[in-house]
Amino acid sequence: MNKIRVGILGATGTVGQRFCQLLEDHPQFEIVALAASERSAGKLYSEACPWKLQTPMPERVKEIVVSPISPDLDCDLVFSSLPGSIAREAEEAFARAGYPVISNSSCYRMEEDVPLIIPEINHEHLDLIEVQQHKRGFDRGFIVTNPNCAVVSFAPPLAALNEAFGVESAVITTLQAVSGAGYPGVPSLDILDNVLPHIPGEEPKAETEAQKILGKLVDGAIEKAEFTVSVQCFRVAVTDGHTAAVRVNLTENAPLEEVIRVISEYKGLDLHSSPDRFMEVSEEPAHPQPKLDRENGDGMTITVGRIFPDNILDYRFVSLSHNTLRGAAGAAVLNAELLVEKKYL
Amino acid sequence: MNKIRVGILGATGTVGQRFCQLLEDHPQFEIVALAASERSAGKLYSEACPWKLQTPMPERVKEIVVSPISPDLDCDLVFSSLPGSIAREAEEAFARAGYPVISNSSCYRMEEDVPLIIPEINHEHLDLIEVQQHKRGFDRGFIVTNPNCAVVSFAPPLAALNEAFGVESAVITTLQAVSGAGYPGVPSLDILDNVLPHIPGEEPKAETEAQKILGKLVDGAIEKAEFTVSVQCFRVAVTDGHTAAVRVNLTENAPLEEVIRVISEYKGLDLHSSPDRFMEVSEEPAHPQPKLDRENGDGMTITVGRIFPDNILDYRFVSLSHNTLRGAAGAAVLNAELLVEKKYL
Amino acid sequence: MNKIRVGILGATGTVGQRFCQLLEDHPQFEIVALAASERSAGKLYSEACPWKLQTPMPERVKEIVVSPISPDLDCDLVFSSLPGSIAREAEEAFARAGYPVISNSSCYRMEEDVPLIIPEINHEHLDLIEVQQHKRGFDRGFIVTNPNCAVVSFAPPLAALNEAFGVESAVITTLQAVSGAGYPGVPSLDILDNVLPHIPGEEPKAETEAQKILGKLVDGAIEKAEFTVSVQCFRVAVTDGHTAAVRVNLTENAPLEEVIRVISEYKGLDLHSSPDRFMEVSEEPAHPQPKLDRENGDGMTITVGRIFPDNILDYRFVSLSHNTLRGAAGAAVLNAELLVEKKYL
Amino acid sequence: MNKIRVGILGATGTVGQRFCQLLEDHPQFEIVALAASERSAGKLYSEACPWKLQTPMPERVKEIVVSPISPDLDCDLVFSSLPGSIAREAEEAFARAGYPVISNSSCYRMEEDVPLIIPEINHEHLDLIEVQQHKRGFDRGFIVTNPNCAVVSFAPPLAALNEAFGVESAVITTLQAVSGAGYPGVPSLDILDNVLPHIPGEEPKAETEAQKILGKLVDGAIEKAEFTVSVQCFRVAVTDGHTAAVRVNLTENAPLEEVIRVISEYKGLDLHSSPDRFMEVSEEPAHPQPKLDRENGDGMTITVGRIFPDNILDYRFVSLSHNTLRGAAGAAVLNAELLVEKKYL
Repeated sequence: MNKIRVGILGATGTVGQRFCQLLEDHPQFEIVALAASERSAGKLYSEACPWKLQTPMPERVKEIVVSPISPDLDCDLVFSSLPGSIAREAEEAFARAGYPVISNSSCYRMEEDVPLIIPEINHEHLDLIEVQQHKRGFDRGFIVTNPNCAVVSFAPPLAALNEAFGVESAVITTLQAVSGAGYPGVPSLDILDNVLPHIPGEEPKAETEAQKILGKLVDGAIEKAEFTVSVQCFRVAVTDGHTAAVRVNLTENAPLEEVIRVISEYKGLDLHSSPDRFMEVSEEPAHPQPKLDRENGDGMTITVGRIFPDNILDYRFVSLSHNTLRGAAGAAVLNAELLVEKKYL
Repeated sequence: MNKIRVGILGATGTVGQRFCQLLEDHPQFEIVALAASERSAGKLYSEACPWKLQTPMPERVKEIVVSPISPDLDCDLVFSSLPGSIAREAEEAFARAGYPVISNSSCYRMEEDVPLIIPEINHEHLDLIEVQQHKRGFDRGFIVTNPNCAVVSFAPPLAALNEAFGVESAVITTLQAVSGAGYPGVPSLDILDNVLPHIPGEEPKAETEAQKILGKLVDGAIEKAEFTVSVQCFRVAVTDGHTAAVRVNLTENAPLEEVIRVISEYKGLDLHSSPDRFMEVSEEPAHPQPKLDRENGDGMTITVGRIFPDNILDYRFVSLSHNTLRGAAGAAVLNAELLVEKKYL
Repeated sequence: MNKIRVGILGATGTVGQRFCQLLEDHPQFEIVALAASERSAGKLYSEACPWKLQTPMPERVKEIVVSPISPDLDCDLVFSSLPGSIAREAEEAFARAGYPVISNSSCYRMEEDVPLIIPEINHEHLDLIEVQQHKRGFDRGFIVTNPNCAVVSFAPPLAALNEAFGVESAVITTLQAVSGAGYPGVPSLDILDNVLPHIPGEEPKAETEAQKILGKLVDGAIEKAEFTVSVQCFRVAVTDGHTAAVRVNLTENAPLEEVIRVISEYKGLDLHSSPDRFMEVSEEPAHPQPKLDRENGDGMTITVGRIFPDNILDYRFVSLSHNTLRGAAGAAVLNAELLVEKKYL
Repeated sequence: MNKIRVGILGATGTVGQRFCQLLEDHPQFEIVALAASERSAGKLYSEACPWKLQTPMPERVKEIVVSPISPDLDCDLVFSSLPGSIAREAEEAFARAGYPVISNSSCYRMEEDVPLIIPEINHEHLDLIEVQQHKRGFDRGFIVTNPNCAVVSFAPPLAALNEAFGVESAVITTLQAVSGAGYPGVPSLDILDNVLPHIPGEEPKAETEAQKILGKLVDGAIEKAEFTVSVQCFRVAVTDGHTAAVRVNLTENAPLEEVIRVISEYKGLDLHSSPDRFMEVSEEPAHPQPKLDRENGDGMTITVGRIFPDNILDYRFVSLSHNTLRGAAGAAVLNAELLVEKKYL
């Protein structure tokens, strides 16, 4: 099979670099175009990109000349991790020009005709693509999004609990890694020996996306899940890995062992980038930890631990995901693999 | 006035060092005895103590020969920051031998005849001293305690809200500094580029002490406040300063501006170590931060910020205190100053 | 005495903030003007400045409206910590307009008619001011500079050794704090769990300034000291405090105890910001450390330790200075105090 | 071929864990015994070991019951990473009992009949084994050692330069990772926002081992290389990866491009754990960095950069190695592979 030829929008950023890393030897996709801001366009990727990953820059992308962000790339689909300020216009333009857009940007996530997908949870929401194309007059193009990286750290266990027992409310506090802010991102003077209690714009995103993801597609529209989410977001001195402290109220009574079971047995998928286990419950008292657990399942497994009865809500637990893999680039690649399997590509 | 002559139990530890620092030029107290484990006893303090504070070791204490922990110190009262394993027996022995014991240890905090004091909040609980002396057969000695350092980061704003509107429940997540674990404490391999989701024994302490502190003394016994507290505790890569993410349900309706007002106007005291403001509300969106706010009021002010309506409980906010000053050594010194003012010393 | 009325150029930066902090209660100077880039001009300082110090912003400066950087400030002298790109033109303009310019910028340091001063070492170089005014046609204005912050960490012990025994060469490796790069400065992704082996432009500065500082003023010109300096500069995950690992070859033989003595007994000054001891030699094996020693002498003392014979050069030692106090803002304030004492102001 | 059955002495420590990780799927070795202190003996490895690596504990070792450190393990050879205090006696006992001992401990490294090996540099020193067995009366057993982890960061480029041009002297400053101190190792209070200028015992080791490694085997004894090494060692807030700042004087003149060439072209080996390139020279100005380069060649490549003429010695450069892989466990495994190839096993 010929590989699907992909372009990366926002290729020089933190998430763009992860796309290059993840697609280096991918069996279904090959990178043929890299697009970035005017400042980078025209340069070799190896010159334009301040590579910050611990594996070397793939040979394949080093010699690609960076293109401007314009919907005339010679490729079959685009992955986008553009900054919000330009994502709205650019992604629409690509979709209108016929490109499938697999987006990690926030701007379209909550639009009612745009799928917001965690494949293991709500792949059936892809049916929105047809609605979207019809409504927006897109021909072959469309936009599919993945959630905010903080949401990914807690939505999967909530999905498991919601399906089994119903979720009424979730009170969440996140301890988020600096890579979530991109590069240069958080100044070191702000985070060394410190905690930041404010991530601009993050709490509203984290409070609204989960209900859409866990919602049901009815008559071509998402009926959002009815629970309420409260999120306080903190930035901590961690490179990668978002930790979420969660308390949850359930609709039905559920014994502790059932809570543990439904989380750890929640169904996974069998896509190329799917981990062996979508969620893994650790019984070690000091897990999950970003440093020790973020690479679980090559960064695609959600690790959950410290599941206990809570004395105000029903249960408490701690959940962790790798924010630039499962929470960003890996999420988008998984979405693309899902689109292949579901014959959208 | 002659100064009160004090001894420090556990003098070489992180909190013991803070006692030496805080009492260096204190108008009411002077250190005359330093006691520590067998390993240190007999050595000069300057030799026995791995000093870790950013101000130099006071000249006064350098030349004191460390004593064993035995209730025959030549002093008028003792401050104790002994590890739990030996505090129970040693503090009782000192009290029985006639010493007032101002303790930062956890073992007696929840005993019904032992005052657990934050002076600004519940100084009237000192009346328990008489009950304690009677019950335990102490002559002049007694034990007074200050709360766990995590509790100190959130109990003050809860006290203000409880007095004004009643508190029904509080859901709290703490991000705690490594100095709270003493020295050597947390290994660097565990905390660099990491978050620890478990502090052994901390969550139960943090969930029970606040109700006692905010309780009422009725007929020689504390009636605990009736609200419930849920706490998840995390260790983060911060030297000093515990941050608490708080959601709270109130008994009465309270508009946001009133919530802010009762916290920021909560009464302080006029003791030597009292800060100008017991609690300070910051309106900066990115405050409180440990690095920038822990030294407020010489480490004795609680800084509160990000007070907003919550979408599950009534309000959310972030609260910060310096864990080894307001949360440990400074708390004990303030308790001692209170005891002087109330004529217990 | 009326205080001298000063303006700060580059007032919102890391060093500019330190000027505001240091001059808050200064007996000789009072801040009356704050100047910064166009982006900040016209705003209140409290709005324009992302304050990053652990002490609160002084009330005095909060309400000052930030001026543009133009030589029409209503003040008697200016402190400058402008970025290199604009410092050259702006500082010249201020000097030409009659302002004494006490500069922390690098652009004029090595000009032959500009004094590069560490007051304890080479205050007699101030005689260059007359040369400078004559040569450049300045009327009352002039420019006086302090050294690069890395140089300040090792030049003082070299000065002591040079005066006593002659220095032939010094091989130095620096471990520099992130505050030396200003704000936002070093991205956290670059420094968490990492060391950066390159600080752009730093090594050449660090290799040339010491010879000028330790040079002699002869016939209105500096004869540079003749030793050679080799410097490799590293950035480490430290907020404040530059550490220098030094090996040095001396012209004359010198026993170890003499080396220690001449460093620790090197003469200080008696200016307002002078520390009790200009240099302090620690005999503790694990000192100096940035966290424990940078605040020595309110950040104005150089701490030296681990002085031992070396097996290639003659001696080795470790030297530490607070880079934004003794190495930047404090250095400039000390220079200004020196200028007052020497009647230049 | 049947795999060689190995035991690990000091199996629960930082380096012991790396042995378990590296040997998980090794084609030549399989772990059959794990030995550790009395405290761990008798427990399952999964219970006894505070696993700190980012990959999960291998299934194979989880169920092994930890043995005491006694020379009656049922295996063909032992890897040792015992602490110095007990290594001397234990390793001798194992060798005397017939076990080949591949040691990462420091106690025998400088003994004249014990090979101190970096396979790419001095594999011919293995001939000392025969001398050792004869001298000590060992039958089949012997001890082979790998260097101190700091030495491994700079000895390889020195070896390349020494072979090509002769090395006269090297002035080195190291910035070492905390994992080099084992677990619990460096307290977080000591290293957060800090640098430690003293690693007990490290500088002498780092100054003597290189000459032995680069020495020549003549008539059954090592003639040490004649250059002198000066090393100042610092601990920095890095998890893994030792950085060395090096200046070197060469015997012969050598142009810069030749210096770069002989380092980057230095011969490697073709053992299982050998990296594609033993040393890699980066021309990026900000490399090597621990975070970005320590995993090069799966942690077995030495990365060198910033090679420039020095103004006191001949050249300067920065060299980096992964201290627990190339500098400890990986070094020992490579030594074992070399012993297989050379028919000692």
